[in-house]
Amino acid sequence: MSSCFGQHLKLSLFGQSHGEAIGVAMDGFPAGMRIDQARLAAEMARRAPGQSKMTTSRKEPDQPEILSGVLNGVTTGQPLCAVIRNTNTRSQDYGDGVDLVRPGHADYTGHVRYFGFEDWRGGGHFSGRLTAPIVFAGALCSQWLEAQGVKIACHIQQLGTVKDASFMDRDPSVDYAYLKGMHLPVLQGGLDSDMEAQALAAREEGDSIGGVLECMITGLPAGLGAPFFDSMESVISHLMFSIPAVKGVEFGEGFGFAALRGSQANDPFRMEQGGVVTVSNHSGGVNGGITNGMPVIFRCAVRATPSIAQKQDTVSLKTGENAELAVRGRHDPCILPRAVPVMEAMTAIGLMEMWKERAACVR
Amino acid sequence: MSSCFGQHLKLSLFGQSHGEAIGVAMDGFPAGMRIDQARLAAEMARRAPGQSKMTTSRKEPDQPEILSGVLNGVTTGQPLCAVIRNTNTRSQDYGDGVDLVRPGHADYTGHVRYFGFEDWRGGGHFSGRLTAPIVFAGALCSQWLEAQGVKIACHIQQLGTVKDASFMDRDPSVDYAYLKGMHLPVLQGGLDSDMEAQALAAREEGDSIGGVLECMITGLPAGLGAPFFDSMESVISHLMFSIPAVKGVEFGEGFGFAALRGSQANDPFRMEQGGVVTVSNHSGGVNGGITNGMPVIFRCAVRATPSIAQKQDTVSLKTGENAELAVRGRHDPCILPRAVPVMEAMTAIGLMEMWKERAACVR
Amino acid sequence: MSSCFGQHLKLSLFGQSHGEAIGVAMDGFPAGMRIDQARLAAEMARRAPGQSKMTTSRKEPDQPEILSGVLNGVTTGQPLCAVIRNTNTRSQDYGDGVDLVRPGHADYTGHVRYFGFEDWRGGGHFSGRLTAPIVFAGALCSQWLEAQGVKIACHIQQLGTVKDASFMDRDPSVDYAYLKGMHLPVLQGGLDSDMEAQALAAREEGDSIGGVLECMITGLPAGLGAPFFDSMESVISHLMFSIPAVKGVEFGEGFGFAALRGSQANDPFRMEQGGVVTVSNHSGGVNGGITNGMPVIFRCAVRATPSIAQKQDTVSLKTGENAELAVRGRHDPCILPRAVPVMEAMTAIGLMEMWKERAACVR
Amino acid sequence: MSSCFGQHLKLSLFGQSHGEAIGVAMDGFPAGMRIDQARLAAEMARRAPGQSKMTTSRKEPDQPEILSGVLNGVTTGQPLCAVIRNTNTRSQDYGDGVDLVRPGHADYTGHVRYFGFEDWRGGGHFSGRLTAPIVFAGALCSQWLEAQGVKIACHIQQLGTVKDASFMDRDPSVDYAYLKGMHLPVLQGGLDSDMEAQALAAREEGDSIGGVLECMITGLPAGLGAPFFDSMESVISHLMFSIPAVKGVEFGEGFGFAALRGSQANDPFRMEQGGVVTVSNHSGGVNGGITNGMPVIFRCAVRATPSIAQKQDTVSLKTGENAELAVRGRHDPCILPRAVPVMEAMTAIGLMEMWKERAACVR
Repeated sequence: MSSCFGQHLKLSLFGQSHGEAIGVAMDGFPAGMRIDQARLAAEMARRAPGQSKMTTSRKEPDQPEILSGVLNGVTTGQPLCAVIRNTNTRSQDYGDGVDLVRPGHADYTGHVRYFGFEDWRGGGHFSGRLTAPIVFAGALCSQWLEAQGVKIACHIQQLGTVKDASFMDRDPSVDYAYLKGMHLPVLQGGLDSDMEAQALAAREEGDSIGGVLECMITGLPAGLGAPFFDSMESVISHLMFSIPAVKGVEFGEGFGFAALRGSQANDPFRMEQGGVVTVSNHSGGVNGGITNGMPVIFRCAVRATPSIAQKQDTVSLKTGENAELAVRGRHDPCILPRAVPVMEAMTAIGLMEMWKERAACVR
Repeated sequence: MSSCFGQHLKLSLFGQSHGEAIGVAMDGFPAGMRIDQARLAAEMARRAPGQSKMTTSRKEPDQPEILSGVLNGVTTGQPLCAVIRNTNTRSQDYGDGVDLVRPGHADYTGHVRYFGFEDWRGGGHFSGRLTAPIVFAGALCSQWLEAQGVKIACHIQQLGTVKDASFMDRDPSVDYAYLKGMHLPVLQGGLDSDMEAQALAAREEGDSIGGVLECMITGLPAGLGAPFFDSMESVISHLMFSIPAVKGVEFGEGFGFAALRGSQANDPFRMEQGGVVTVSNHSGGVNGGITNGMPVIFRCAVRATPSIAQKQDTVSLKTGENAELAVRGRHDPCILPRAVPVMEAMTAIGLMEMWKERAACVR
Repeated sequence: MSSCFGQHLKLSLFGQSHGEAIGVAMDGFPAGMRIDQARLAAEMARRAPGQSKMTTSRKEPDQPEILSGVLNGVTTGQPLCAVIRNTNTRSQDYGDGVDLVRPGHADYTGHVRYFGFEDWRGGGHFSGRLTAPIVFAGALCSQWLEAQGVKIACHIQQLGTVKDASFMDRDPSVDYAYLKGMHLPVLQGGLDSDMEAQALAAREEGDSIGGVLECMITGLPAGLGAPFFDSMESVISHLMFSIPAVKGVEFGEGFGFAALRGSQANDPFRMEQGGVVTVSNHSGGVNGGITNGMPVIFRCAVRATPSIAQKQDTVSLKTGENAELAVRGRHDPCILPRAVPVMEAMTAIGLMEMWKERAACVR
Repeated sequence: MSSCFGQHLKLSLFGQSHGEAIGVAMDGFPAGMRIDQARLAAEMARRAPGQSKMTTSRKEPDQPEILSGVLNGVTTGQPLCAVIRNTNTRSQDYGDGVDLVRPGHADYTGHVRYFGFEDWRGGGHFSGRLTAPIVFAGALCSQWLEAQGVKIACHIQQLGTVKDASFMDRDPSVDYAYLKGMHLPVLQGGLDSDMEAQALAAREEGDSIGGVLECMITGLPAGLGAPFFDSMESVISHLMFSIPAVKGVEFGEGFGFAALRGSQANDPFRMEQGGVVTVSNHSGGVNGGITNGMPVIFRCAVRATPSIAQKQDTVSLKTGENAELAVRGRHDPCILPRAVPVMEAMTAIGLMEMWKERAACVR
């Protein structure tokens, strides 16, 4: 059902790129949390455009206005809605939209789904700009989760052909908060400049470039998730594939499992300080859809942004003829740095949903 | 949460491996479809164990009894429930279960989630046996979808180190129904025996082996799915990750997108016989979360079954001590051939859900 | 839609009057409750037919078989499914069904909704027989709620023109468990025989008779329910109107509020033993959709069962002509005594749903 | 789950009486409807305060701003969000709120549910002011439904001791649109002045007065609704009980059914112009939870507004002592005239949900 998520934390996302405003209504957020406005603003800034040569030069203030659900800076437990006004839009950039559908974008599929009534300007409701309210919602969830000891870290594991190390091989007890401060967050120092070089090279050629993001959640208790339809992996992947441009999701060894034998893939159990842990963590912290208390690790494949300056073949919905199109306007050659906070936000939203589901398991 | 799926087609899955029965209640299945019992039985048989040296020698009749929702062989549109009795269970095989938790299984996480009250016998509600009612439900959905011109084909794209070709490089207009007749369905003739050799080699060593499944849906209209939270990819991945052992899902080029530039990743549009098509299909038939009318192609990484004969380290939940465990009983060295019909079933269930959602988009 | 209920406790109801079996799948029931089989059987018996002159002489064993979700008599927290076989059906009684639609029944509306594919035999999925699995599910919820100190009592407040007293005027601290032992549970001794006389008089004339049921819930904590869409009244009424024959629901003074002034309708607060109570309870224990800790009191109007022996005008769906119909078969002249346990069961189901929702309100 | 409604048309209501803004996000509204702004404004005006001596003198502009989901005045089919700024609030009127809880209000229950973090100012999220976005959403649904031939009419059937006629006894083919133009819409001319007199008399005495609203839906096709959990009555009552102050809901003869025999309560069928109709309409247009094509008629009991000028007993949440309270501020002595458009709006919302559910019943 399009733009709603959750049975316990209920999100309703709305807005179009060039409409009046974008925003999110969120029902079920816990009462009594004082919002850390500085950290919220920092999260919004990480996603905002215009921060480097790699990202579009558009300046979007992206200032969320909280309309409800907060009193004196503290959440009330009642529906929380925030909106972000659309101010810095240049609609002439997108004048050809609904006529010449942009390859890789949702112009054509949106046209079919909404019977031609869709707001096509700048991608409309499909625009990556809609990830701003998602980051807002996720940042609140992150703050709440951190108070419970849960931490979410994310880095760019691959950009083009440059590959970073993996959380799978790193010490999960390290504080990875420093990644939030990096424009191109990587585990192996120096790789960020290699990545930037690839992105800028693509831009030079009027092109764009994809990559892989990796996320690690630490501090989660065992017991979140469910067998079958609402497994941890199901809920997380559902949200990850809601991020525009994500085309693959894998947990733990992921597609690497294909060549592993059971004896290599299993994570033996061991008692440690009175608690059950696994010796290895190939499964990425999830057994049978439920967290086992180890770090949850997963990756998303992110395709290159489809907005490129090069000429492309397409069709005209107005004439029904073949046509050529060069997407004008300001576009990121590589969306990955801005996708990092979105991935973290979606993760936090999913965890909040599962946390509440778990709490509802009364005895 | 947990064992229910769908807002339009509502599934409720129940049962434990060694309980009285397993089954599924399904609300919202269309009225007026005559069930093809022979094809239904054939689908059930594909998933059933005991068909070859590669699969467990257990004989499960897996005969679903339809309790409701069908009159004179035709669906009524009212809730449809089917149950499968558990008859051929040897619970002594699993006697150690709740004490020594099996690595890679849900014994430990289920114990935490259900506060120690779970049915642990043979994996209980987590057992792969629960995929039998899923295949039942999916087979009905497949029959309905085929009447609308939709076809679902699935093959083993990788088993251990043996890699088959991909639907990405094959002609989608070919009739791939023949794959359903192969024990190890592959596109490249002869690879099935190589795969079988790898599986049997693993078995020899008391081990198991993983792989990758690939699925292609043809005949889908453009316009199914949604932006953001209920994208085609979100719904399909949600269901795929509900299949035990699936640890990765990717669409189109999937993780291969990471190294592709936008100009390589985009699928140009072209008019063909009055309709809009894409020249290539890197995206796997989905733009912005919505089908574009091209074949939908996706892959699942399947981990090696965790039940292996080799000794493994684990813990005793009873003593709180470290321990050793060798999983006895009858187990598949490679679950992939039996996972193929499950993947098809889950796909059909997801499509039926999205088809109904689309139909609700009244004008 | 249709036969599913709940977001936290998820029920899926299935079956037709003359099909193989009826039953319910229930996901989200708490783990760790030992089922009191004797009390469960007693609840099933209260709803079962054939107990007196007032109820149909059909003998239905109504023996629910629990297929899943229980191990050694204790709930596992995993999906719980129970089925009741249909054994004592005489389908010839209903031979005219789909041709001559019975006034007051769902024969015609079901025919339209299911495009003519519905199971029409004996009312099919619409049959009051489907309340047996509801009583089963509700009885389990009641047992769990009682362990938390919650009690549900129900009596016949009106039958035809005979009116009983109301819980509104009675001491809520009394133990009303004795009502469960009465065939026609009433608060004012002796009225049950007056009621029986009215019911038998109606039967004499080939007719049936309606009434009003009243329910009181005591021991509920304050804070259950929600403003607006999921108010206590919304959830309870949703379930009450799911009981066949219920045509009205009111809380506290109900329709009597129309003639009351605010000063008469308000319930003043008072401190009592350190807790907040209300001096009166006109509101029936609910303010702003949320329980205030006082007894929750509500009533349901129950129409006379539409199955009567008298001749009625109707139409033939086969010929499209007007026709006459006398409903043959065995029918209750008054459904109220059997509706009492159904009302209690639906109440318990709604409370369990709200209890779990409340528990999910983490801080 | 508090403030969300719907599985097909998904509403998310937000805002507090004295917060920044109130509003509603609506997902699933049909694409392609040109909004009639004048009629929308007229509906908003009917609910707005300050229209007569009977309603509060507060002036609320209640100007909804549509933030998304509409392009060039036509709905896009994408999420539609509208907000109404809170401008004319005098928070000093409510200064005592969280200390002295107002009898009949949600001050106390909201305090418990939200752990003391609720926005208590002017009722906060519980305020009747939240019905403004509901009227907005309902007005859009009404416009869409009218284009399908569906009409919703509503009148005050009782106010205090003054009783109007019922739609049950009136010709449903009459155009009742004129009721929308009456401040106190009644069927029997002249009764509105009697009603006004009762309301003003209550006001004189610092009191308020309740009543009954009646609604009729004509032009509905047969086949909307469902057996059991999502019956037409369940969905409509769920929404009606979401209206603050509604304490009873009944369909057709409602509580009058108690004294009717089956032969009096049944509605015989008849063929008329090739279609099936019922000769009488005691059931209020619903059989077995599903519309039968006849007018749907139902009533709501509305309690007197709890805000009265008279002194009342209450408690102080700050001191834990008994206390006295006189609610100051501007309040309606009778909420019924303003509740009429809310009842119509909720009805339209429920019908849109069921209409879409019906459309999803593909064959």
